[in-house]
Amino acid sequence: MADKLIIFDTTLRDGEQSPGASMTKEEKLRIARQLEKLKVDVIEAGFAAASNGDFEAVRAIAAAIKDSTVCSLSRANDRDIARAAEALKPARSARIHTFIATSPLHMEKKLRMTPDQVFEQAKVAVRFARNQVADVEFSPEDGYRSEPDFLCRVLEAVINEGATTINIPDTVGYGIPELYGEFIRNLRSRVPNSDKAIWSTHCHNDLGMAVANSLAGVKIGGARQVECTINGLGERAGNCSLEEVVMAVKTRRDYFGLDVGIDTSQIMPASRMVSQITGFAVQPNKAIVGANAFAHASGIHQDGVLKARETYEIMRAEDVGWAANKIVLGKLSGRNAFKQRLTELGIEQDSEAAVNEAFARFKALADQKAEIFDEDILALVEDQDEAAHAEAFGFVHLEHRASSGETPHAHAKVVFKQAGSEVASEAAGNGSVDASLKAIESKVNSGAEMVLYSVNAITSGSTDSQGEVTVRLAKSGRIVNGVGSDPDIIVASAKAYLSALNKLYAGEQKLNPQIEMAVK
Amino acid sequence: MADKLIIFDTTLRDGEQSPGASMTKEEKLRIARQLEKLKVDVIEAGFAAASNGDFEAVRAIAAAIKDSTVCSLSRANDRDIARAAEALKPARSARIHTFIATSPLHMEKKLRMTPDQVFEQAKVAVRFARNQVADVEFSPEDGYRSEPDFLCRVLEAVINEGATTINIPDTVGYGIPELYGEFIRNLRSRVPNSDKAIWSTHCHNDLGMAVANSLAGVKIGGARQVECTINGLGERAGNCSLEEVVMAVKTRRDYFGLDVGIDTSQIMPASRMVSQITGFAVQPNKAIVGANAFAHASGIHQDGVLKARETYEIMRAEDVGWAANKIVLGKLSGRNAFKQRLTELGIEQDSEAAVNEAFARFKALADQKAEIFDEDILALVEDQDEAAHAEAFGFVHLEHRASSGETPHAHAKVVFKQAGSEVASEAAGNGSVDASLKAIESKVNSGAEMVLYSVNAITSGSTDSQGEVTVRLAKSGRIVNGVGSDPDIIVASAKAYLSALNKLYAGEQKLNPQIEMAVK
Repeated sequence: MADKLIIFDTTLRDGEQSPGASMTKEEKLRIARQLEKLKVDVIEAGFAAASNGDFEAVRAIAAAIKDSTVCSLSRANDRDIARAAEALKPARSARIHTFIATSPLHMEKKLRMTPDQVFEQAKVAVRFARNQVADVEFSPEDGYRSEPDFLCRVLEAVINEGATTINIPDTVGYGIPELYGEFIRNLRSRVPNSDKAIWSTHCHNDLGMAVANSLAGVKIGGARQVECTINGLGERAGNCSLEEVVMAVKTRRDYFGLDVGIDTSQIMPASRMVSQITGFAVQPNKAIVGANAFAHASGIHQDGVLKARETYEIMRAEDVGWAANKIVLGKLSGRNAFKQRLTELGIEQDSEAAVNEAFARFKALADQKAEIFDEDILALVEDQDEAAHAEAFGFVHLEHRASSGETPHAHAKVVFKQAGSEVASEAAGNGSVDASLKAIESKVNSGAEMVLYSVNAITSGSTDSQGEVTVRLAKSGRIVNGVGSDPDIIVASAKAYLSALNKLYAGEQKLNPQIEMAVK
Repeated sequence: MADKLIIFDTTLRDGEQSPGASMTKEEKLRIARQLEKLKVDVIEAGFAAASNGDFEAVRAIAAAIKDSTVCSLSRANDRDIARAAEALKPARSARIHTFIATSPLHMEKKLRMTPDQVFEQAKVAVRFARNQVADVEFSPEDGYRSEPDFLCRVLEAVINEGATTINIPDTVGYGIPELYGEFIRNLRSRVPNSDKAIWSTHCHNDLGMAVANSLAGVKIGGARQVECTINGLGERAGNCSLEEVVMAVKTRRDYFGLDVGIDTSQIMPASRMVSQITGFAVQPNKAIVGANAFAHASGIHQDGVLKARETYEIMRAEDVGWAANKIVLGKLSGRNAFKQRLTELGIEQDSEAAVNEAFARFKALADQKAEIFDEDILALVEDQDEAAHAEAFGFVHLEHRASSGETPHAHAKVVFKQAGSEVASEAAGNGSVDASLKAIESKVNSGAEMVLYSVNAITSGSTDSQGEVTVRLAKSGRIVNGVGSDPDIIVASAKAYLSALNKLYAGEQKLNPQIEMAVK
């Protein structure tokens, strides 16, 4: 049997750190369940000490997931590690991932600590973590820009303290495959107890080489764990993309000679779910999961392409789950068929009442739309999750009319719930979206700045597709995303705006591990 | 002085081969002018023999561009090469790029030729091309999967015939950096006259490694030309991304030691232009040009980030042109200021009448929208180009109204031009977009299938942004994109649909070099 490559997914932690990608506990749980179906080895569920919300999300995932190890990030201090351990208590298999920066720049500018202080803190933290759980990962942040002598000293010490995985982050995406691979090989050969730990890569995509760097870390460096995210989500240009690294190892097994445990047929459902929940679109020319990645999957049937398919394709679309976008249900589908499809989609409803509510929404949608796709069902449940948590704001009704021409005019009347009571508001604007959102804002007076407005057709193919709108609001340094879906794009926009307002008012401040200045 | 790395941009050829990315002559010219401002060394302007439209586009670009070499692709036969040479006649510096497949699979399945036949045809084609122009590039298609002994024999022969550049395509995106780099190094060491040509990389991104593979071809293999596209546009998962490969060579000059002639401050304008013209969105976590690639460029000001900026960023957003999205004009701007901004944006109007028309459209937009961004001006000119070529269909007027609730209802009345006369049509639908497009389709009866509908806010920040809608239609194997922009998203949708119909009815069939079965 070949060596196994451990797939460590950090969509819920590093991915969530993207400005605008923050998720609710329910959304994280849904993604975690999908990652389990994907057979990810380790799920980094969050950073438990960041906020109470993060703590609760990590704990809920730890309780729900059976087949994957559940991990929490924590800075290298007792309080963070204790929080992580507490959140992970329900987990069948738990890992604490503790980190501290080791590059001269980060130690001086961010931590304001001497190398000796960092060395001590790393040691003490890993010792403390090992007293909580048996599975401890240590990351020297900005490791790839760290001084190798110092790094070797730190890594030897933390392995002695019981760290079982050593991760080498290229925090700023500065690596080149052969250099990053050699960097890890060199560390492994110099650290005397290196064989006592599994080595891991963590690469960012600032220069477009996160996947190649990770694979060089594996092939040249001897790493046996890759840290990655669905759709390459992550801060700035994102992290190494799970789907790309997995398909490269599978497609070029002749070269890598490694096994991965991933069920690749779950890649597309995972990609769609993450894109839908975060509102981060996947570009058409994205490898593996982009709409154009497989010509014949985008509904295109050009003469000759089929005959020559094998001459231009090294992977099959079916193998990564492209066939999943199938018509499953319609107007005549019954409650049982609907419930079964929910289960197949990894959606668990808390009670029969919740199933009934979802089914009622499904029937209402089926009245408007002949063919109900998996994406529609996901959107419907997403809306329901929203509704369940929409303490402050909820959509009720909207009317709009507009006329183009010499003096274009749009007018909208929106009725929405605010703190339990219905509010009606009217406004004019440049277009119907503008008028609708102005009508809401004129009553709410949030003062938030809209930094992104985007629309995706949930199910392509016809004009009766549902539209899914993402609205990103910024206020006082906080960024939130709201998502709304409806066959009418204007209604979807209003729902998205209300959803963003809910998050803006409900949310709490949380720590960002990488922005925190001082650790102590 | 360091070696120079030649940047060969194929956005207009390989990029345009993406299903749905086809461009008009005017759009190609606009992109070519931007590529010239970017100081690209070689612009592959198209495949002259593919259609009369392609021929005209290559000729127009050859006539307009002064500072870059202009190149046309051509299969390895006299007719194609003669068409390429004819189209390139006006060029100050012209290159013919001829290719033939050399991998066993492609020779057998696609060409149905023996290796000896391929060898002869490659030789004869390069000889013929050298009789037309001094600068001849040869590509063995699917070169990376070709048998090295045979490939060496072909490459030695074509260099003897006068090929000045030898390009090694990884046509299916199968390469791994160290393997692809070694492959080129091996060829260069075995082909006796290899030093008589410049070697080049051409990598596809199917496994997410196109940039790393290209750079390994340079560093390990000794290539001194990289073929790439803006935004990594291209068939399937696309080509090596120009912006990523250029910024990697610049940021890691310590490792590569190579000069590139690119004016990186023109990267963002080029990225926006290509995205806008093709309707291919750039995902937020795309390296260099994605909205999140530089945290501080997305309007986010988190405490602490600014202080620690250098600890997390290896490039400056300003260096790649992120500052370009500035407010330039408003309601009170005069015709001269507008005309000057057009020139700065690389937009050349054929006549004063055209400037007047654009200015009138600008004033109309300024009445609706306080701040006019560069993107607005580009969209406005794009619409005008459309209008000038809208022989068949044009937008006149639209009214819509809709109401959500128990029985959602949308109704639209659209007035549009069809073959010179105005047509009025009404329809109901699920939402206003659906109703508007149904109103148009009910009169036109195109029978086209909508395979994509997407919306981008052209200028983010506020709800009075213009919306830009892309509609992709498919009919009988042809795929066209229509783009429309308007502050009202429903109007933008109708414009996009009419624009797509124009392309569907006006367009001609053209050859796709890689799908053609037989060369002779």
